[in-house]
Amino acid sequence: MSPVAVFTATIAHVGRLKEIPPMQNLTIDGERLWQTIMETAAFGATADGGVRRLTLGREDKQIRDWFRDQCEALGCTVDVDTVGNMFAHRPGRDRDALPIAIGSHLDTQPTGGKFDGILGVLAGLEVFRTLHAAGYETERPLILVNWTNEEGARFAPAMLGSGVHAGVFDQAFADSRTDADGVSFAEAIEAIGYRGSTPVGKKHFAAMFELHIEQGPVLERENADIGVVTGVQAMRWYDLAIKGQEAHAGSTPMDMRCDALADASGIILAAQEAARSLGGMATTGQLSINSPSRNVIPGHVTLSLDLRHQSEEGLDTLESAVVDLIRKQCGDRAQLQIVWNSPAVNFDPLCIDAVRTAAVKWGAAAREIVSGAGHDSVYIARVAPTAMIFVPCKNGLSHNPAESATIDHCAKGTQVLLESVLARAH
Amino acid sequence: MSPVAVFTATIAHVGRLKEIPPMQNLTIDGERLWQTIMETAAFGATADGGVRRLTLGREDKQIRDWFRDQCEALGCTVDVDTVGNMFAHRPGRDRDALPIAIGSHLDTQPTGGKFDGILGVLAGLEVFRTLHAAGYETERPLILVNWTNEEGARFAPAMLGSGVHAGVFDQAFADSRTDADGVSFAEAIEAIGYRGSTPVGKKHFAAMFELHIEQGPVLERENADIGVVTGVQAMRWYDLAIKGQEAHAGSTPMDMRCDALADASGIILAAQEAARSLGGMATTGQLSINSPSRNVIPGHVTLSLDLRHQSEEGLDTLESAVVDLIRKQCGDRAQLQIVWNSPAVNFDPLCIDAVRTAAVKWGAAAREIVSGAGHDSVYIARVAPTAMIFVPCKNGLSHNPAESATIDHCAKGTQVLLESVLARAH
Repeated sequence: MSPVAVFTATIAHVGRLKEIPPMQNLTIDGERLWQTIMETAAFGATADGGVRRLTLGREDKQIRDWFRDQCEALGCTVDVDTVGNMFAHRPGRDRDALPIAIGSHLDTQPTGGKFDGILGVLAGLEVFRTLHAAGYETERPLILVNWTNEEGARFAPAMLGSGVHAGVFDQAFADSRTDADGVSFAEAIEAIGYRGSTPVGKKHFAAMFELHIEQGPVLERENADIGVVTGVQAMRWYDLAIKGQEAHAGSTPMDMRCDALADASGIILAAQEAARSLGGMATTGQLSINSPSRNVIPGHVTLSLDLRHQSEEGLDTLESAVVDLIRKQCGDRAQLQIVWNSPAVNFDPLCIDAVRTAAVKWGAAAREIVSGAGHDSVYIARVAPTAMIFVPCKNGLSHNPAESATIDHCAKGTQVLLESVLARAH
Repeated sequence: MSPVAVFTATIAHVGRLKEIPPMQNLTIDGERLWQTIMETAAFGATADGGVRRLTLGREDKQIRDWFRDQCEALGCTVDVDTVGNMFAHRPGRDRDALPIAIGSHLDTQPTGGKFDGILGVLAGLEVFRTLHAAGYETERPLILVNWTNEEGARFAPAMLGSGVHAGVFDQAFADSRTDADGVSFAEAIEAIGYRGSTPVGKKHFAAMFELHIEQGPVLERENADIGVVTGVQAMRWYDLAIKGQEAHAGSTPMDMRCDALADASGIILAAQEAARSLGGMATTGQLSINSPSRNVIPGHVTLSLDLRHQSEEGLDTLESAVVDLIRKQCGDRAQLQIVWNSPAVNFDPLCIDAVRTAAVKWGAAAREIVSGAGHDSVYIARVAPTAMIFVPCKNGLSHNPAESATIDHCAKGTQVLLESVLARAH
């Protein structure tokens, strides 16, 4: 992430404040939000304080039923589309206007925590409860969305429900995904009764906002409360196969080796150096040696490469640098194959502005940030004006039972969410 | 291996030639040796031209029976000790003198070739056949040995039969070894009827010679026919565990990472650099990432480290350098544990001299070499004057179906073996 100015309450965007409707005394209830987070953490709670709530499993059905009940108790109608995405509708004064959506996900990783995704949906619920308690009617309708299978942990790929909604995948593709036990998405969704009748992708939004924990350490390091998310990094995944020559570790002199692991080591370090100098990121998370043996020089190594940059051009440059260094290290002994390409996402300027203005209004220490992780908003941004709000998480940790965010940060993020939604819903 | 002068026939060691007895017209039959190598390759032959003859298995029994028959056909008596080591005795004029032994092994790796170990035993058989055909009687008796389980592929550790013979392991330890199916060494040796009655370790030798393929590329590169093996490198095996911090590959800036795989890559390269500059060897053949995932920065990596040097002092220096560089890279996040230590072996000067002299006499292009691999001779050198003879193998390859040596090199090595034995048996 390149250094970006930290926005604080002392930097007033006075002109924009005028755009906010006059009901400025609406404040969310941070204590109620926190209780709700702790309440839902029981659906799939693990002994170590984490949550295991795999997509379309028993615990996912439990929280879906609970979510529907909570929304209906606020007078919302809830409908479900054919891939299980849930939409809670809160009418506006203008029944025909496109609604403003708040959305994230309620599923977790197998060793997940209490906040990733969940915060965004429950913050939306808290927004609805606040509006309900105040008897507040927005001009546009509001929709609170629980997107199916954001994590991709049970059914790959990730962000499947929002992806089908946005037309990135089709329904048949989603239905055909299988879990590790061979159970298909289609079987699983029918087993828990969450195949809805609403055609997928037919809900249109005037805007969507997603509140999420940062899943990184930047906000915490900079003592920022709110991340004004301007977009999502471009990312590409590659598989790299390196062919050397297996040989005896004891009888092959150092100058006569063709050691595929030494090549891999050099490439890993050089790619990271290139990423540093070009302002991007390079990560190898998987590496395996074919027929590994302690006294055999590795002859065949495969590894993953994850390259990211805030801009497409930056990622192109980083990719070229990495291709060059691989060629330099291995000549034609290496094969690099791209396995996934996710272009950079730039969120909607008006939505970003609504978030920034709300943060400033509430005295939050805010900074702009580009998301390093993927979120449902990546796909929704293709079909609706979208922005995200980040709050810090402890040590930048997520996908972990120790995932943690403070009550204060959750409350601040939710207040900014409320203000942002109101700014766009008038 | 440090560069060592190549000895050729043009460098005459005239003084030493006098030590050889007058029957200088004894020449081995290279064609017969080759036919025998091809004949035995049928015991455990694999479709790809390799040999799979695991210790104490069905194919090992076949070649043991065959070996006994061949030796008895030459008038030898064969006895077997309690760990299955086979000894074929050829009487000398002095029946009370300690015999000169020729030994190696007939077992192979699961994906082994036709030469590793086998050449040494069959060359000994060719020496016996040559002496038999000539009606030649040596002063000392000769013994041809097939050592049990040199490979260690079915029953770890390697060099087990010679190790028990030399007192490095005891009989109970050998008996307790189990294979991957849970079958013990004791069960396997009894199943094929090769638990002999000769007490193990009671055979004493005036000297032992072992002919072996180099299992490395040095002789081939230098166009040498014969390696005069002066000893075996010191080697130590280590396990290294590195603890970093798992984190999201997309949301953790490069300067906030604690990437255990990047640490490992740096250590692998730096250890190899240290080995190069100190004249030793460093190899990492195994590396694994705990819970690898393509978009997670590795938090825990374990790897093997194999360090070798021709001298103990050299290995101590290399080890210190590697410990320092690990500390520098990782501080207290790394744990290095030694799992095996094999001291340097210096072969017997008189036996080495016999090999060198024989090579010179027969016009072989010879060079001194230190073995990088372990052999039965490592342990036998503890209880008897020992030396080894290497011949080149194609591309330095072994433990591979493609393992290959030329008929000419096999013949030259066997002639040198014959001469060396005669030099010490008079």
